Parts: sequence; structure tokens; C-alpha cells
Amino acid sequence: MTLSIYLSGEIHTNWRDEIESGCAAAGLDVTFSAPVTDHDASDDCGVAILGAESDKFWHDHKGAKLNAIRTRKAIQDADIVVVRFGEKYKQWNAAFDAGMAAALGKSLIVLHSAEHQHALKEVDAAALAVAETPQQVVQLLTYVQRGTLPA
Amino acid sequence: MTLSIYLSGEIHTNWRDEIESGCAAAGLDVTFSAPVTDHDASDDCGVAILGAESDKFWHDHKGAKLNAIRTRKAIQDADIVVVRFGEKYKQWNAAFDAGMAAALGKSLIVLHSAEHQHALKEVDAAALAVAETPQQVVQLLTYVQRGTLPA
Amino acid sequence: MTLSIYLSGEIHTNWRDEIESGCAAAGLDVTFSAPVTDHDASDDCGVAILGAESDKFWHDHKGAKLNAIRTRKAIQDADIVVVRFGEKYKQWNAAFDAGMAAALGKSLIVLHSAEHQHALKEVDAAALAVAETPQQVVQLLTYVQRGTLPA
Amino acid sequence: MTLSIYLSGEIHTNWRDEIESGCAAAGLDVTFSAPVTDHDASDDCGVAILGAESDKFWHDHKGAKLNAIRTRKAIQDADIVVVRFGEKYKQWNAAFDAGMAAALGKSLIVLHSAEHQHALKEVDAAALAVAETPQQVVQLLTYVQRGTLPA
Amino acid sequence: MTLSIYLSGEIHTNWRDEIESGCAAAGLDVTFSAPVTDHDASDDCGVAILGAESDKFWHDHKGAKLNAIRTRKAIQDADIVVVRFGEKYKQWNAAFDAGMAAALGKSLIVLHSAEHQHALKEVDAAALAVAETPQQVVQLLTYVQRGTLPA
Amino acid sequence: MTLSIYLSGEIHTNWRDEIESGCAAAGLDVTFSAPVTDHDASDDCGVAILGAESDKFWHDHKGAKLNAIRTRKAIQDADIVVVRFGEKYKQWNAAFDAGMAAALGKSLIVLHSAEHQHALKEVDAAALAVAETPQQVVQLLTYVQRGTLPA
Amino acid sequence: MTLSIYLSGEIHTNWRDEIESGCAAAGLDVTFSAPVTDHDASDDCGVAILGAESDKFWHDHKGAKLNAIRTRKAIQDADIVVVRFGEKYKQWNAAFDAGMAAALGKSLIVLHSAEHQHALKEVDAAALAVAETPQQVVQLLTYVQRGTLPA
Amino acid sequence: MTLSIYLSGEIHTNWRDEIESGCAAAGLDVTFSAPVTDHDASDDCGVAILGAESDKFWHDHKGAKLNAIRTRKAIQDADIVVVRFGEKYKQWNAAFDAGMAAALGKSLIVLHSAEHQHALKEVDAAALAVAETPQQVVQLLTYVQRGTLPA
Repeated sequence: MTLSIYLSGEIHTNWRDEIESGCAAAGLDVTFSAPVTDHDASDDCGVAILGAESDKFWHDHKGAKLNAIRTRKAIQDADIVVVRFGEKYKQWNAAFDAGMAAALGKSLIVLHSAEHQHALKEVDAAALAVAETPQQVVQLLTYVQRGTLPA
Repeated sequence: MTLSIYLSGEIHTNWRDEIESGCAAAGLDVTFSAPVTDHDASDDCGVAILGAESDKFWHDHKGAKLNAIRTRKAIQDADIVVVRFGEKYKQWNAAFDAGMAAALGKSLIVLHSAEHQHALKEVDAAALAVAETPQQVVQLLTYVQRGTLPA
Repeated sequence: MTLSIYLSGEIHTNWRDEIESGCAAAGLDVTFSAPVTDHDASDDCGVAILGAESDKFWHDHKGAKLNAIRTRKAIQDADIVVVRFGEKYKQWNAAFDAGMAAALGKSLIVLHSAEHQHALKEVDAAALAVAETPQQVVQLLTYVQRGTLPA
Repeated sequence: MTLSIYLSGEIHTNWRDEIESGCAAAGLDVTFSAPVTDHDASDDCGVAILGAESDKFWHDHKGAKLNAIRTRKAIQDADIVVVRFGEKYKQWNAAFDAGMAAALGKSLIVLHSAEHQHALKEVDAAALAVAETPQQVVQLLTYVQRGTLPA
Repeated sequence: MTLSIYLSGEIHTNWRDEIESGCAAAGLDVTFSAPVTDHDASDDCGVAILGAESDKFWHDHKGAKLNAIRTRKAIQDADIVVVRFGEKYKQWNAAFDAGMAAALGKSLIVLHSAEHQHALKEVDAAALAVAETPQQVVQLLTYVQRGTLPA
Repeated sequence: MTLSIYLSGEIHTNWRDEIESGCAAAGLDVTFSAPVTDHDASDDCGVAILGAESDKFWHDHKGAKLNAIRTRKAIQDADIVVVRFGEKYKQWNAAFDAGMAAALGKSLIVLHSAEHQHALKEVDAAALAVAETPQQVVQLLTYVQRGTLPA
Repeated sequence: MTLSIYLSGEIHTNWRDEIESGCAAAGLDVTFSAPVTDHDASDDCGVAILGAESDKFWHDHKGAKLNAIRTRKAIQDADIVVVRFGEKYKQWNAAFDAGMAAALGKSLIVLHSAEHQHALKEVDAAALAVAETPQQVVQLLTYVQRGTLPA
Repeated sequence: MTLSIYLSGEIHTNWRDEIESGCAAAGLDVTFSAPVTDHDASDDCGVAILGAESDKFWHDHKGAKLNAIRTRKAIQDADIVVVRFGEKYKQWNAAFDAGMAAALGKSLIVLHSAEHQHALKEVDAAALAVAETPQQVVQLLTYVQRGTLPA
């Protein structure tokens, strides 16, 4: 039972690497996908490929739609969607991905610090697990695949 | 063609009243639904009905799930989901509702000030209209139902 | 927003009446459906209408399928499925209904005493509310429809 | 035509091993999945990974949700869901899985002794086969894949 | 709980009238739909409206597609599909309707004499009831709606 | 059996009026929806309500999305989608609507002159009827609802 | 683009072999599935594995359900469903499979002699091709996969 | 993350080759499908395999349905549908494919020259990218898969 996992949300810390390397170290049979995590490329992809826009709204719009080609595919293919809320920014795209994942019947895991607990209560209520650290996510995935608990 | 509209998001300004009274004044054939907008009731409904929790996480969790009974029904029944992002708070539940609406194929209208344009670009990219004022939403709905433009 | 509610499970106590009369007293805009609660009719309907069976398995089989015509329709039409687990019997049909409701994306409310908490943990985990009394269900439905809490 | 089979239900006897080894002996092209069958790990996984709970309800709740990540994936991926009802315990989770499988259009095989026939009539009525022994399930799967009957 | 019922199949006996008048006499809250039962109109509708065809295949093809506009709508709107197999003709369209009904998750009731039992075993296996007389169908619908058995 | 019909395509002739008045004269139980047929309003609705655009692409884009709120709703609610291809313009939006209708399982009726037969062969191949005149569509709808043919 | 093809219907002639060997000779990238074509095994599988029945109806019922595990899987996995109507028997199961295939959006190819044209008009109307010989089906599949026509 | 791409539309220029060779040169992990691009074979396939028709409408009809077996499969299997509108012909089949792709939730990329901008505004409004050259499509796909922008 290979698990396909989409890692959505925060792009400014190395939480994805921690989960991916932790799963690799554990020898799990998992595959990962993620949004483009190069912030500048993600912001400018639309105009870089399809032509400049004088209006910032359309500059962003073209880029957001290109990114959606990747993220929609990744969410649809995933068994599990892990959404990480970090300490900075509005991160509405992370909550938007969580809403899509819930509506599509994906297993949702939310990853955030205790500080955001109240603000994320609706997102957490749709999740099958709420974790605080990437290490917990590795342990979760290990349990889901193998049925073994951390020593 | 009655239009069924869910008004999601910000609960601290009277934007819902403006849209509802504007549509009533225009004589549109529309029905509205909304989340519970009494902030205290919304926060405490779970424990008030199902029993107290010592842990804030579960206090919130019980409430968020009760609210989900209402909001899921409202989104599923809607033709159009209008999501309002205000000036304050994280509003992750609003973005979550937008994600659900998009995944369910609902027509999405996003309502926010120019200030939030960049942070909301992924949400806006999934929308069929991005408005700044409730009056624009009234005009949109008038056009969608009758094909007439504002004078 | 009329709420359509299916009341599944135990047929030997008057919990359905309590919920229906409580909602009527509160003036809620709700409709209820239920399985056939006449135990003998429910057991014998198949052979009474379609002819006797010498084998008890097929006697039961014919009846269970007739009842399924009613219960499948009721679950599919429901916004909310309330499943009551009582003190007696195996009640596997109640858990089966809960599984169908969850898979169909219905809002699930489970009603049972504390005694069954551990045995029902998988069912409860799929629910949006776990109540112990019919009165709590009336309060829940009142909140979901009107946003008001019990005094 | 590889058949993907989820083996749901009782975890205290070796019925899964009998089916899996029987199919292996027959050389069938089948894959199996199952819930975590280590009872203690299954009960405690939530708190072991995500932190202790003082309230037994939430202890169970966290665990049941983790287990749901595995079981939902397994049911969704399955062509055939075999649900075994044993002699002990309430086994409401088994009936819940059967309800999900039926609602998702999976082929359902129920495995139980004659003693439970009446209590399981609604579950049996949704099934494509009702067997009493693991050996019968092996014979069923052999027939489904190859069209050959037991000698 | 209004029941919506599509009466498919044989058009040369008055079985539909018997079911409809029986339900009316019982005062049931049901609605009925049916294919066009005027054999000549049904055969010739395509060419009568859209122009003659020299080739019998296309003559039939145009008519069958017009009829499909009506029958697809009726099946999709139905809660229950009753399919009657009579004594004459191939009646492949009846079996085709039954297949569509089963795939769409409709409750299927099959109505035929004992003579056709073996030939209809695959259709019967997908049904929730197999009846021999229109009167049994009336009794079934009475039970499904009211829970009462024939005296 | 009320029929809900979406009239898509050409907006420069009075074909919709002919169908609607023909059905009214026949006393059919049908409801009609249509795109906004005021060409100028349809082109300019986006900028008229949501603000001007200097770039023609975005001017059109905002308008096309507003119109999609209406047309998606109309197609989703329809039992039958009639798509009219006229003599002028590219009419790609008409073919696009036909593709959506086909993918959503709607009954598709195509209305065009013989001249366009070869160019429309893929669209016609997905249709249940291909008509040349509005009068034929009225006759079709009369037959579908009542089973009667033109005298 | 591997094509997955289910060969439904008549089991008393070698039409499946002709299609399979023809496709093999042409080197097509296709996979085939079929019902169990051993008539006796197909009739008796239920009682042979799950125990004898004194009533012929239930004897057939148990067998038909076992066979449905195989055929439902095969239809769901197929891109294309070819349904062959032969010269003998009622063949209602073939028409039932065709109805399921149509409702599930599978590409339907019907294979029958001219003699059955009128009786099969509703089934043919749902098909994307109506062929008279297995050789035509091989040519069809060759064209669908490669775009080449018979010399 | 292998991307599966359907290249719909114009068959008289080598735009498909440019995209395919560009992606190959970039080493992308993509698979392509396309309609039959041999114009004569595509027009005549129906009669060449299934027998001649005297009426041009049915000649075209049989061919269009055969082609639909291929195109429906290709669209359903695709993650991304690229639709190219060229300079000539009505190309209603291209717009029809775009409508199907949109209704099925596929990521839609439209490829056309500026000249067609106004006429394609409804199709463009449903797209996640609107490109003018095959090279841009290669760059888009490179970005979607790898997150890298053109130098």
C-alpha cells in the first residue's frame, strides 16, 4: 500500500525535507508531491512564460493559475494531504488547499504550532490528525503504513 | 431561476445585510444562507450543548464540528458562494470554505479590499468574480439573474 | 434552510418521539424519516408480500432488502443522519447505516450512552457530534438552524 | 485482472492468514490490505504519537482517526471488501466498514457463523456473498478470478 | 417521503394501470413515470419529427434516441425503478433500463412470471425485490412508505 | 414530469422565442433558461460592474466569467440542453456548452441548418436529436413529454 | 494508450477468441476481460462454494451474485465494453451489462446480426459503434488505437 | 509526477510535434495523446469499417462516433487538456472538447493567436492558461513539473 502524500502550505522552512528524509530513513513506501517552493518563480511564472502584465492583479492571476495546474493534480492524486501553517503570512492558499482536500475526501493532516489552535479550529475539525512537528507526521505515516508505534 | 447563495467569511461587519437588503430592494429571486454570526455562540456551542471540556483544543473542536453541520449543508445547497475577507484576523475558515466551494464546482465570488490582493491570489484565481464592495455583489447577482447592468 | 433528518437505529425506546416532539415544540423547520419501527412487520415484510421461505436466511434476506428500499432513500435524502445505539442487541444495522452516511458525506450525529464509548470509537470518529440524550439532539438541531443556544 | 481485497473486522483469530495463505497456495493474482491488527497499538496510536489525553473519549478519538487514514485508503482502493464478524465484542467498526463499502459500490463479502445470521441480515442483504469459513472465501476468489470451482 | 417510481418494460398489458390505480386506492404519496407506451408512436417518432430515413436502422435509431430523452430523465429522477418483463418479445430495452438503474444506485424491483426466473437471474440479483404480480408491487410500495403489511 | 431546458447558442435571431411560444401554445409543462442575450451587456458586464480594464483580453475575461455564473447554473439545472448554431460568427461558446452538457450527461439537442452538417459532426454525434427548425424542437419536446406526434 | 476491453454477452460461440486473436495478430496494446464462459460453472458456482439450495431461485441467485463480483469489476475497469448478442436465448444479462456500461460512461460497442436490429434499437442508440462481425471489432480497435484503416 | 496530456484541436499544422519534441528535449516526464490526425481516415473510418452510407449525415455520424471512442478515453485519462484553435475551419470539435474537459475538472490550456481572442473568451475563461505558441506550452509544462522558468 504505497501512500501518496501532498505537502501543502508554508514554503519558508524546511519542514518538507524533514518529513521526506524521516520517511526515507524509516524505509516507508511513500511518494511526495509539493507546490513549487521557489517563492520568486511561483510569483512570476505567469508573466515569465505568457507575457508581462501592467496590472499586479493580472500578474498574480496568471501565476496563480499556472500553479493551480500543479497543485490540483497533486491534491487529486494524493491519499493524504498534509497542510502546514507557519508563523508568518496570511497563508490563505494553505487553508484553501485544506478545503479542497476535505471536499474531495482526502485524509487531511494539519501541522501547526499551538499558537494557531483557535484560528485553525475549523480546519482542524476536518482533519484526521493535528500535529505540531514534522517528526510526528513521520511517526503517523509509519503507523498508517506499518502499524508500528515509535519506541 | 432562483439563485441560492451562501455568504461565507467575516462576521464583524454588516456586509451580509448590505447584500441581502440590496438584493431585496432590487426584487431579485434569491435565497441566502450564512454561518452562525454570533461570535460567542459560535465559539461555545459545542460545550454548551454537549458538555464542558477542560482542554481548549477540544472545546473548540466540538464547536467547530457543530458549525460544520450548518456550513457544509449551506455550501452544498448553494449555487454561488460569496466569501468575504475582512481586515482583521486570520480568517482561515473563510479560505477553507472557498476551497470546498471550488472543489464542489460552485460559482465562487470573492469579496476583499485591494490590500489583500496578493495574499489572496490563489483564492481569486479559482473565483468567477473578485469584488471590493457588497454593492458590486448586488450588481453581479442582478446581472446574473436578469442580464441588466447598473445604470 | 429546511433540514432533512434520518433517525436510524434503536427501535425499542421512544427516542425518535422525543426528538420529533422537541423540534416541534421549538418550531424548527425540519423533516424526519425513519426505518419501519414495527419490529414484527420489519422482520416479516418480505415473506408476507413476496411469499414464504422455508429457510430462515432467505426469510430474513427478502425482508432486509424491502427495508433497504426505504432506508437507502431516507439516507440519500437526508442532510443529517442521527444514529442511536441502545442498550440491547447487536445493532449492526445501525453501524451499517452510519458507515453509509459517512461515505455519502452526510453530517453524522451519534447518540449513545457513555457505556458504549470505547466500542463506538470508530463510528464517533466519523461523526460531527456525539450526544447522550435526545434533548441534546434537539438543542443541536436548534443551534444548527437558528444559531441559538439553550438558555 | 488483479483483485484488490480489504479484509475488515475481527482481529483476534487468524482468519486473515487463512485467506491469504489459501490464495497464495492457489497462486491467485490478488493483493490484500487490512486494518492494524495489533490491538494495543490500534487503541493507543493517537496518544502515543500526538500526545496524551486525560479524557478516555479523546484518547480513543485520536486513535480512531489515525486508524481511519489507513482504513479509508484501503476501502477506497479495494475491489472487494471482506468483513468478518467474530464471536465476541460489539464489532460496530466492522459493520461501519461494511456500510462504507456498500455506499462506495464495492463488492461486499460477509463472513460469519450461522449464529449471527438474523442480527446481520441488513449487512448480508447488501453483500454479494455470505460465507461461513475462510476456505469458502478462498474458493470464491479463485472462482471470481479464474472461473474454476473447487474439485 | 414522496416516492418517485419509473415503470419500465412491457407495454402490451395493463400492468402500469394496475399499479397506479392500486397505489391511488391505497392513498400512497407516489408519482409515476413511464416510457411512451403507444407502440407506433414510439417506433416512428424520430422520422415523424426529424424527417424520413430510407434505411430501417436509422429510422429506428432516430426514434430510439428521442425516446431516450424521456427514459433517461425518468430513470434519473426515480427513487425506485420497476422493470416488467412480459411473455413476448426480446425486451432487451427493459433489461438495459434495469442495468442503468442498477449502475445509478436506484432501488430496482423486477416483475416477471416464474417462467423467466432462470433467464433473469442476473437482473434479479441486482434487485431489492422480485415480484410476480402488480398487486405485490402495490403492497411493496405501501410497506416502503407506511410500514404496514397487507391484512 | 416538468422538463427544464437550457437554450444555448445563437443570440441574433428569435429562435428562442419560437420555441418558447410554441411550447406555450402546446401547453407543455416546461421551464426555459438562456444566457444573457443582450450582446452589449454580455460583452461589457465585467468591466461595468467590477471596473474598467485597459487590456481587451481582461475586459473580455471578466465578462466571460460573470456570464459563466449564469450559464453553468443553467446547464447544471437542465434536463435538456438545446444548442443552436446560426449562420454567422465562430460560435465557439455554443460548442463549448455542448461539450459541457455532454460530459454532464444532459440530453443534448442540436439545432442547425444542413450547411453546417459536416463541421458539426462531432457535436451531432453526442446529441440525442439533430433538428433544423425551432418547430421541430417544439414537436420533440411535445413528444418527450406527452408521447404524441404532430398531426 | 492501452485499451481495456470487456467482452460481454454470448458464451456459446468463439467470438471472443476471434477478437482476441485478431488484436494479437495486429499487435495492439489491449487487455481483455470476460465473464466466466463455462456455462455449468457459471450456473452452479454459488451452491458449489456456499452450500446447496433446495429452491432453484436461490440456487441461481447465489450464483448470479458471485458472477457479479467479476463482471462489475470488469465493467468498471473497462474503457470499452463490447456486448455480443447471439442467435439464441433471452440474453437479458447482456442487455443489462450494456445498460450498466452506458450509465457508467463507458464506450459501448454492440455486436449482433441484422436480424436483431429492431429489437436492439435502444441498446444500439446508446452505442458508439454497431458491428456485425468480430473482424469489424478488431478493425475498430485498430483504428481507435492507431488511426489506421483496413487496407 | 508524470503528467498525462491530451492535445486537442487543429490537425493541419505541426503544433503537436513542436510540443512533443520540446518536452522530449527538456526531458520531461510526460505522456501525450491526440485524436487521429489523418484527416481522410478520420472522416471515413466509420464507413470503411462498418459499411457504406448513402446519406452524408450518417457517413459522418458513424465516423464521428468511432473517433469519440478515442477522444473520450484520451480526455478522461488526461491531467491536462491543451486545445489548439488554428486559423481555418469552424473547429467546433475543439471547442466541444474544451467544454468536456472543463466539465470533467481537467486543467485546460488554450492555444490560439491574438486574432481569435474575442471569439474564444468563454473558452479562455475556463482555462488555467492561454498561450500563443507551442513553445510557451513547453515552458508551461516544464514549470508545472519542475518549477523552473525559462532562462
